[in-house]
Amino acid sequence: MNHKMIFYTLGQILKLEAALLVLPFAVSLIYGEFEILAFVIPIAISVGLGFLLTIKKPATTNFYAKDGFVIVGLSWIVLSVIGCLPFIISGAIPKFFDALFETISGFTTTGATILDGTRIEGLTHGMAFWRCFTHWIGGMGVLVFVLAILPNADGKSIHILRAESPGPQVGKLVSKIRITARILYLIYIAITVTEIIFLVCGDMNLFEAIVHTFSTAGTGGFSTKADSIGAFSAYSQVVIGIFMLLFGMNFNLFYLLLLGNIKSVLKNEELRWYLGIAITATIIVTFNVFYGYDRITPIGETIRNAFFSVSSIMTTTGFCTANFDLWPTLSKSILIILMFIGSMAGSTGGGLKVSRIVILFKSFKREIKKLLHPNIVEPVKVDGKGIDDGVVKAVNSYFVAIIVIFLLACLLISIDGFSIATNITAVAACLNNVGPGLEMVGPIGNYSAFSIFSKLVLSLSMLVGRLEVYPILMLFNPRTYRSY
Amino acid sequence: MNHKMIFYTLGQILKLEAALLVLPFAVSLIYGEFEILAFVIPIAISVGLGFLLTIKKPATTNFYAKDGFVIVGLSWIVLSVIGCLPFIISGAIPKFFDALFETISGFTTTGATILDGTRIEGLTHGMAFWRCFTHWIGGMGVLVFVLAILPNADGKSIHILRAESPGPQVGKLVSKIRITARILYLIYIAITVTEIIFLVCGDMNLFEAIVHTFSTAGTGGFSTKADSIGAFSAYSQVVIGIFMLLFGMNFNLFYLLLLGNIKSVLKNEELRWYLGIAITATIIVTFNVFYGYDRITPIGETIRNAFFSVSSIMTTTGFCTANFDLWPTLSKSILIILMFIGSMAGSTGGGLKVSRIVILFKSFKREIKKLLHPNIVEPVKVDGKGIDDGVVKAVNSYFVAIIVIFLLACLLISIDGFSIATNITAVAACLNNVGPGLEMVGPIGNYSAFSIFSKLVLSLSMLVGRLEVYPILMLFNPRTYRSY
Repeated sequence: MNHKMIFYTLGQILKLEAALLVLPFAVSLIYGEFEILAFVIPIAISVGLGFLLTIKKPATTNFYAKDGFVIVGLSWIVLSVIGCLPFIISGAIPKFFDALFETISGFTTTGATILDGTRIEGLTHGMAFWRCFTHWIGGMGVLVFVLAILPNADGKSIHILRAESPGPQVGKLVSKIRITARILYLIYIAITVTEIIFLVCGDMNLFEAIVHTFSTAGTGGFSTKADSIGAFSAYSQVVIGIFMLLFGMNFNLFYLLLLGNIKSVLKNEELRWYLGIAITATIIVTFNVFYGYDRITPIGETIRNAFFSVSSIMTTTGFCTANFDLWPTLSKSILIILMFIGSMAGSTGGGLKVSRIVILFKSFKREIKKLLHPNIVEPVKVDGKGIDDGVVKAVNSYFVAIIVIFLLACLLISIDGFSIATNITAVAACLNNVGPGLEMVGPIGNYSAFSIFSKLVLSLSMLVGRLEVYPILMLFNPRTYRSY
Repeated sequence: MNHKMIFYTLGQILKLEAALLVLPFAVSLIYGEFEILAFVIPIAISVGLGFLLTIKKPATTNFYAKDGFVIVGLSWIVLSVIGCLPFIISGAIPKFFDALFETISGFTTTGATILDGTRIEGLTHGMAFWRCFTHWIGGMGVLVFVLAILPNADGKSIHILRAESPGPQVGKLVSKIRITARILYLIYIAITVTEIIFLVCGDMNLFEAIVHTFSTAGTGGFSTKADSIGAFSAYSQVVIGIFMLLFGMNFNLFYLLLLGNIKSVLKNEELRWYLGIAITATIIVTFNVFYGYDRITPIGETIRNAFFSVSSIMTTTGFCTANFDLWPTLSKSILIILMFIGSMAGSTGGGLKVSRIVILFKSFKREIKKLLHPNIVEPVKVDGKGIDDGVVKAVNSYFVAIIVIFLLACLLISIDGFSIATNITAVAACLNNVGPGLEMVGPIGNYSAFSIFSKLVLSLSMLVGRLEVYPILMLFNPRTYRSY
């Protein structure tokens, strides 16, 4: 294990976080809010620690897959521990485990909150900005960013990219990882700016447009309003509904579009499934809500609420325009299943990812076919190309792991004694980085009533979901540190 | 596809069912109940059809795996359709889909009922006997029985044994399948008789002892009392609690005991996990119920209720002595997870089976190890022996299939609009052949309020669970009938 390289990268991450904290600090100063210490202290700590850890460049930048996992797991935890200091110092969220929960929820782009509506609307501009900015930072991945700016990112960095990027397979856009990371970030920034422009044209002021765009881009879900996006006009709701779907798409597709390769984009199988599921779910929910719950609301508004909720839950953003906790059971069940399906691989969203679902589905079909014709040898095909059996196996294992972790977390938080629907949807919403669930943690509820133990379990679930199981598992596995 | 062989076997099954129906008919006559037509008509139909289908012996008794699946799937459906006639004709359950639900629930040893307490206690002896007898028949498998008595059961019959027997691997006790099937049935009968003797020594009369033993032996759960086993003495509860655990064990272990090979039994890894999980769950539930719900009930009674409920749910029997729907969430969550874990492979119980859980757990551990040491080649080991990677893969696929079917069924029955906890536990209880769930389908509830559509979905779930997915899937898969 290359300890020096691990510490060196952590140092880089800390320096990066110091730089990132300057932005909300500036916002706070612009609005004349007296929270100077809330930002200066964490900036000082991260700068100090950052320089301490990066004084000496490691002799060798070589590292193995397990070092990659440990770096990623550790970075996200360190990032969150420092990142929660502004909330504690400013008094916005005075308790440590609450602030940590909120910050992990931010960086993992979950959007689950322990703040009630009044406290959300009472946040200063500086705090509200930082809260939503963590979504934007976590969306694309901090280490991808470090790779983009580090000059010494060499061939081995693929281990980091792989450990931090969501989806069953990691493809480099171009041969160099550094260039790939830069292209991804440029696309990310470009769509972010576009959304801000669209939103300021509506009923949002610049500040609201910026922070809600951060939350959309990272598929996070934090808002500055108690009613989330329900507080804004139909125009803003539609714009955000569409941009959530865009940020739930594989960023490689945008790169292909830039290259003018529209045909490849239209032919992409995962994209077809993704849009197909979203449209089907929207249609069923619309009918179910209209006929089963509320015939008074105009059908146009029902369609908009259904589309927004499906887009929000499937991309694992978690914004709300309607209290879907009051909808009929069928609609609620569809939303829970969408939480697990999630967005496309290579997007900023969470969940299992549509491509994994497609592979699972196809491998099951092949299994059935093999029972009928035992001698047939046929690979699972996606986009017309055969997929390596190792990937199929890994997707199966990943599914099993997620379900087992899901059940275990449900069991652990059930000690608190809240209802089964609350527990199941709380874990589903955290593990898949969605945010809101049902009942106590529904659109008008929050996570504050859980015990510290449950909050820790849910925080870990968010990290497990965002980093796709292995980095967090490796970090807490004693075997990782044995050198044999 | 060997159609003649399929029809011939179906004919045998029908003749067997006619013979089995004579028993409740006799009970009905002994008690002087005027339900002659309720038994004569189905007996006449099955004898008639049975002889018609077995007039000509098929020229070749050869068949393939897919024929095995179709035979098993079809047999269970035909058996249930004929088996529900007594309930309809006698007027005990006049509606067809209700009677079919109850009968499928019987044969699959689920024990989910559409009858409320009053109607259960109002059943005639003949009907109550038939209802519980279906559990006993379904427990060991009807086709295994046919194999035991058919003279022409040859090498290919392993396909039938494999399709009907629960668990990831099927072992023959002795080289001949016919002899294996006979040994299994003899053990089954011997333990059944032992339990009846134990129960008549308590507060049950002979009739009650017999029918409740049928329900225990098949790990079914139908009772003649509204309060299930809670209506009987502590002695009866303990006896049934222990016998449920016995019938949830792999029958091969009893054969080993008979051969005097106690060492192999004690060393059996699945048995250790099975007992380990049961004991751990009992301890946690006891403490949770005592401190979190009811400190008035003496601790001894709480232990007994906890042990009985854990044994009942884990072996997927479904008897009740306490209304666990009122217990704290942690205990309820443990029971839901136990539903999925289920009993041991090669028992009469349902669920995923402990051996599959052990294999899943170990293959996940190996996966983690491989991430740390990519070059290690190591098989998953159970009982010290390496397990074929094909089996490990099949166990993973099976888990994925069950979860996907579970979610799909939850979605379908959620159209009815009952609560999420009701839907989830109803499907979990049917798919794993347990019986009672929580809330509406809890220990004092029943399944009658569901729509016909939902009852069909739940009936299919019971068959899918009992026959372990593939026979039912194959039966409804058009590809199965293509001959290419």
